[in-house]
Amino acid sequence: MSYDSLTLNIDAKIAHIQLNCPDTLNTMTPAFWRELPEVVQHIDREAAARVIVLSSTGKHFCAGMDLSVFTGGALTSKQELGRKHENLRRTVLQLQEALSQLEKVRMPVLAAIQGGCIGGAVDMVTACDSRYCTEDAFFSIEETKLGMTADVGTLQRLPHLIPQGLVRELAYTGRRMYADEAKQAGLINRVYPDQATMLNDVMDIAAQIAARSPLAVTGCKEMINYTRDHSVADSLNYMAAWQSGMFQPETDMMETFMAKAEKREPDFEELNKMTSIFD
Amino acid sequence: MSYDSLTLNIDAKIAHIQLNCPDTLNTMTPAFWRELPEVVQHIDREAAARVIVLSSTGKHFCAGMDLSVFTGGALTSKQELGRKHENLRRTVLQLQEALSQLEKVRMPVLAAIQGGCIGGAVDMVTACDSRYCTEDAFFSIEETKLGMTADVGTLQRLPHLIPQGLVRELAYTGRRMYADEAKQAGLINRVYPDQATMLNDVMDIAAQIAARSPLAVTGCKEMINYTRDHSVADSLNYMAAWQSGMFQPETDMMETFMAKAEKREPDFEELNKMTSIFD
Amino acid sequence: MSYDSLTLNIDAKIAHIQLNCPDTLNTMTPAFWRELPEVVQHIDREAAARVIVLSSTGKHFCAGMDLSVFTGGALTSKQELGRKHENLRRTVLQLQEALSQLEKVRMPVLAAIQGGCIGGAVDMVTACDSRYCTEDAFFSIEETKLGMTADVGTLQRLPHLIPQGLVRELAYTGRRMYADEAKQAGLINRVYPDQATMLNDVMDIAAQIAARSPLAVTGCKEMINYTRDHSVADSLNYMAAWQSGMFQPETDMMETFMAKAEKREPDFEELNKMTSIFD
Amino acid sequence: MSYDSLTLNIDAKIAHIQLNCPDTLNTMTPAFWRELPEVVQHIDREAAARVIVLSSTGKHFCAGMDLSVFTGGALTSKQELGRKHENLRRTVLQLQEALSQLEKVRMPVLAAIQGGCIGGAVDMVTACDSRYCTEDAFFSIEETKLGMTADVGTLQRLPHLIPQGLVRELAYTGRRMYADEAKQAGLINRVYPDQATMLNDVMDIAAQIAARSPLAVTGCKEMINYTRDHSVADSLNYMAAWQSGMFQPETDMMETFMAKAEKREPDFEELNKMTSIFD
Amino acid sequence: MSYDSLTLNIDAKIAHIQLNCPDTLNTMTPAFWRELPEVVQHIDREAAARVIVLSSTGKHFCAGMDLSVFTGGALTSKQELGRKHENLRRTVLQLQEALSQLEKVRMPVLAAIQGGCIGGAVDMVTACDSRYCTEDAFFSIEETKLGMTADVGTLQRLPHLIPQGLVRELAYTGRRMYADEAKQAGLINRVYPDQATMLNDVMDIAAQIAARSPLAVTGCKEMINYTRDHSVADSLNYMAAWQSGMFQPETDMMETFMAKAEKREPDFEELNKMTSIFD
Amino acid sequence: MSYDSLTLNIDAKIAHIQLNCPDTLNTMTPAFWRELPEVVQHIDREAAARVIVLSSTGKHFCAGMDLSVFTGGALTSKQELGRKHENLRRTVLQLQEALSQLEKVRMPVLAAIQGGCIGGAVDMVTACDSRYCTEDAFFSIEETKLGMTADVGTLQRLPHLIPQGLVRELAYTGRRMYADEAKQAGLINRVYPDQATMLNDVMDIAAQIAARSPLAVTGCKEMINYTRDHSVADSLNYMAAWQSGMFQPETDMMETFMAKAEKREPDFEELNKMTSIFD
Repeated sequence: MSYDSLTLNIDAKIAHIQLNCPDTLNTMTPAFWRELPEVVQHIDREAAARVIVLSSTGKHFCAGMDLSVFTGGALTSKQELGRKHENLRRTVLQLQEALSQLEKVRMPVLAAIQGGCIGGAVDMVTACDSRYCTEDAFFSIEETKLGMTADVGTLQRLPHLIPQGLVRELAYTGRRMYADEAKQAGLINRVYPDQATMLNDVMDIAAQIAARSPLAVTGCKEMINYTRDHSVADSLNYMAAWQSGMFQPETDMMETFMAKAEKREPDFEELNKMTSIFD
Repeated sequence: MSYDSLTLNIDAKIAHIQLNCPDTLNTMTPAFWRELPEVVQHIDREAAARVIVLSSTGKHFCAGMDLSVFTGGALTSKQELGRKHENLRRTVLQLQEALSQLEKVRMPVLAAIQGGCIGGAVDMVTACDSRYCTEDAFFSIEETKLGMTADVGTLQRLPHLIPQGLVRELAYTGRRMYADEAKQAGLINRVYPDQATMLNDVMDIAAQIAARSPLAVTGCKEMINYTRDHSVADSLNYMAAWQSGMFQPETDMMETFMAKAEKREPDFEELNKMTSIFD
Repeated sequence: MSYDSLTLNIDAKIAHIQLNCPDTLNTMTPAFWRELPEVVQHIDREAAARVIVLSSTGKHFCAGMDLSVFTGGALTSKQELGRKHENLRRTVLQLQEALSQLEKVRMPVLAAIQGGCIGGAVDMVTACDSRYCTEDAFFSIEETKLGMTADVGTLQRLPHLIPQGLVRELAYTGRRMYADEAKQAGLINRVYPDQATMLNDVMDIAAQIAARSPLAVTGCKEMINYTRDHSVADSLNYMAAWQSGMFQPETDMMETFMAKAEKREPDFEELNKMTSIFD
Repeated sequence: MSYDSLTLNIDAKIAHIQLNCPDTLNTMTPAFWRELPEVVQHIDREAAARVIVLSSTGKHFCAGMDLSVFTGGALTSKQELGRKHENLRRTVLQLQEALSQLEKVRMPVLAAIQGGCIGGAVDMVTACDSRYCTEDAFFSIEETKLGMTADVGTLQRLPHLIPQGLVRELAYTGRRMYADEAKQAGLINRVYPDQATMLNDVMDIAAQIAARSPLAVTGCKEMINYTRDHSVADSLNYMAAWQSGMFQPETDMMETFMAKAEKREPDFEELNKMTSIFD
Repeated sequence: MSYDSLTLNIDAKIAHIQLNCPDTLNTMTPAFWRELPEVVQHIDREAAARVIVLSSTGKHFCAGMDLSVFTGGALTSKQELGRKHENLRRTVLQLQEALSQLEKVRMPVLAAIQGGCIGGAVDMVTACDSRYCTEDAFFSIEETKLGMTADVGTLQRLPHLIPQGLVRELAYTGRRMYADEAKQAGLINRVYPDQATMLNDVMDIAAQIAARSPLAVTGCKEMINYTRDHSVADSLNYMAAWQSGMFQPETDMMETFMAKAEKREPDFEELNKMTSIFD
Repeated sequence: MSYDSLTLNIDAKIAHIQLNCPDTLNTMTPAFWRELPEVVQHIDREAAARVIVLSSTGKHFCAGMDLSVFTGGALTSKQELGRKHENLRRTVLQLQEALSQLEKVRMPVLAAIQGGCIGGAVDMVTACDSRYCTEDAFFSIEETKLGMTADVGTLQRLPHLIPQGLVRELAYTGRRMYADEAKQAGLINRVYPDQATMLNDVMDIAAQIAARSPLAVTGCKEMINYTRDHSVADSLNYMAAWQSGMFQPETDMMETFMAKAEKREPDFEELNKMTSIFD
């Protein structure tokens, strides 16, 4: 598989997705919107890795929506207005769904961000599991400055990540938030002097995750996703139902005991490829 | 397009999907599970019709899950148990999602049921908008008799359709409910002496729906789906947001006034084909 | 107080609101939309009655939205489209809120329906507590026939009142449902040969309600409203918090015991007028 | 174990709980409130049966709360009012929880009702899975007539069982609903000429349930309970997690196939007694 | 319009509401409770500004509930206890609703806080969009120290703004939290040396917001409010419905492009005054 | 009462629960799982204190689940797999419920943590109201390192306490988080140089809480718990119902005024022991 807007490298159970159009500031083109969900779903379906790192190239992480998207079919057609709006609604849902793949994939996704992370790029990184950035990174809900309300995830996910009063100031003004403020606010786990150092460390974290039982890790991701959107009581109940099928102390847990006794790293089976009754 | 488990005919804006394996009692084979969502999504995406009629052939509507499904990959593989269960969970979600297409498609789906509607077939028809049946029709949550809990929609949707105390008796015993009881309970809108009469009348109802503004009708479907799962307050609020985009009195409503004045049937534009930013 | 679209009579703790524009089929004019919530809130605030009967005059109960509403400001102004739609959203919310007063008022509201109950009138009666009708009554979700999606309550409340499959058929086709079908479906509590008989009996039921403790009755209404929109567990918990303040066995319950012992009707205090910290 | 307010007989995997104080109309005394949850939890914990039948003795099923409850500690103490109310809230929660055991027990509960089912008895039977009654049975939300709002389940569960407009009329007036109306409304599954005939048939239904896989049946109960209080999407997702652990085609399902081939009844293992890490 | 408890100045599309009873520490008097919602609703209805700044005068921002409120009608009347409690419940709802106007108004509200922000004042500022304060500011959930549970918003909104463990300590002890801790906890966006500096900067932020499309900004506010109370999936779906009506790239977005090309500030239309069908 | 895994001391209305098996690192043994809920429920039922401090002995707070738990009945029995999983589900629910007592008890629970807080101990302290720790404290979601998904509360409660991106990194890697990071993230209210200093200060905070009206404090706890799991609108409404019963200005509030006037500490009544209708 080869892609126009990004590259995919899988090594040591870590999938590295890298935006690779630095000349156009990695804006989110139609190709990007098609390829990102495709590559994420591929990794998920094939259980091709145990963790995903999402990074970028060039001075800036991503400058947000490519203007060509706004000149596409849904927005500029000369249709009856009701139908046009129905179509616009579906288009927004499609764009949201593309980014939601980062949340739905069974493996954790770590975003490594340098320079500008602007507009749609904020929507994207808030759908990742954890975020890391360089000292020169900055974030802006640029949509407000373009006269529109951000619509593909920022306003839905950022309030779960940083204090509400700050979300609101950022959304209403469209001002930039720099790395330090983002770290202090909780959006960012760690700040690094430069991209190389960042990628090095993020790969280390990814390697730690890849060394764990992928079934235990995917259980964590499912539960944290679920908890965000349900009551604690419902989430505990869901956990118990999940565990009734997934917790097998005689395999993964026993392997950790034996590995410890034998002073070696534990060796876990991969998650299943997603076999389908439909094939 | 040609299908193994069903046929599709579109005429006068009515799509007729018909199960056509009467010799095997139209059991739900892997081919069926692949084709049903495919054909429904096709109609949705292409706005190929304004309403869907789902019927069947032979003495019985559908005898439920084909046994070959239970001997497929997810259930019989010799894997580590935790991974096997994780895979089983995903398989159940896939099967559910296949039937949920009937609920998610923008057009109403009317089910016309003759003879036995058994096991998975109950899951299927409860995902349709409305149900009609012949006098000899009967329904059974057969899964209980097979030693399993029905898992692809019946227990989630039937309690919204008939009295709870009856749902429970049917689910726990697995007994048959015949047409009369099903009608009285509210599962069935109308009972007919035979299949030909039924299809004739259901096509009439479909024709009435096809004569309405497809945007108004899809709005109704979206709202009724939404209301089932949300509070009335949330549903009213959603309605108002929806209406802000979709209600265009100067087109569809004006057309109904003009048609009335001119003593003709109103003529509405179709819904949009689902254009995609991704293409 | 005097009203253009309706009359209000309060007698024996029963408030009778009657639509009184039979010549225009009691369509819902701007005056109606202003006056209905006003009169309902007045009864609520003043604790002016213990139960409300909503009836109408002439051959038909109510023919739905008056066309003058569609030619009002929100729909026909020549504004920037986004602002116009924001305004339309708020207008829909206002109309919904007007009818929701029937649900929010502390006293039960019984609707007595003769002849046609059409379009917006269905939205209105589904917001009442219970419905009664004459043999010649019929109901139609007329909006679909006018090229629009009903937006002021029918699609949100009717699915809580009658079987889903029937709601959908009615909404998609816009066909009429007559008294018998409405009774069998559960929309209507009782059917009467004519309006006089109906009003007589509905007043009897109202009188029974007016004879009960108004605090006990308003507790029932609050709980049934709440339960519709929350889980049983949440509803039980809310009940217990409510009861901690409202249940006073030494007053109302004791009065029922004493009245029984003394072979007289119990005599309960009225609910409080809604005093306000703001005045 | 021996009880004051009821008897327990377990035979052929059917537990029969019978209220046995006909002389006092089986009112719900402190002994009843202590014993009912105790006996239900015992059956659950010990997996002592596969289905429960709840019936009564004498002319009337149950006349509701015994007046001695209202003269107990929480209501009559001379405490600081805030603490008294806090205590009252907890008492209501305790009473609710006692009846909720009927809903939470892993086995279905079938209620067989003769004569009067009054006040608290309605709260009780609405917490059962299914209800059956004799021709002379009647139901009344008597609390309203006693000057209080019913607070232990009726207003939370009845709206899930019968049409809303009818619930409200019954709650506000306190009038009786007789067997025929209750059957037509959906509260009752079947009406019988007398108690003996009823018990005979209900035992037959119980026997059918007891012949099924108890794991499949308890899965049905859990799912129907869950669905009432969650969205369909959440309920489908919960089903899939549940099934990942509970669906074992190689045991119960295989047994049904083999039993059929061998022309015998299938033989399923009981549910586990609830072993505890705490013991 | 003139007010007793506050002043309103509107300039450059910024509405400045200022509490102006420094001699009584700006306690929340009946006049305040009447005037605050009135002035906020006025701005909303008339689209009289694009952003609101809420500040105060004197050494302290606001000392919370004026004692005269506790001696008002609902609390001291000599009524039957049940009715008195029903009335108290409605009074609490009214007070809550008064502060909730700050959340519901279409424009962002920025609170600028000096000195003490005590009791009811904390309820008030947590209903604002963002908070700014001076170095000498402090916050206390004073209600606990007065022997009551805070009941007009603090316990409902503060847990969305600062860490839960801190909320609980503050609520249970009633201790003061000073500016530094409040900033670090996320309650406060920025701390200033004195009130003049604070007001200057907050007005700058308000000016930035006033320079944006008011339709884009109100969309942000609606979405952030909505997201706090709904799942991410529901919130994304709501966003898409909203956007179908509100997103008009040919007006506001195009204006930002043209303004940039012409090196000027973009010029956006105001939101609509809230026209009403009822007038 | 005497316990094996902990000690209970009640003094000056503060209950001090202390884990006291330092030699085995206070691992969570079957005795612990039985005794912790027992002692917490005892305090609750008897209103034996106004606040609870949970601390530990030895170098480490608690090393998590004792391995003997994993070798108990539910996990190692040789049963039919479906029944075994059903049993496992119930065991997980039991363990969760044991820790949830810390959340449900009417009194605040303050956790004072030294050294390692590992695995199940994180589940435990996240169920407490507030957390305090020594400089050498560290936290780890150790379960992931043992090949399993944490299942008794960490993944459900921690996301409400610290930034989501950090929760995820901790859960996926199983790495340690030290006191400083935990304080900055919001998990910990205050960090102390050593355990003695910590206990001294936590007892001071507990004493402040014990000096408040216990009814006001329990109202705060109930509301903060409730708000976490419900919308702000629902939470405000619940608050108003609660307050209608619990707010008694003439007792606790009046006492605070009088105490102030008389320059003494206010003296409040205890909460009620939980009397039961069942006894």
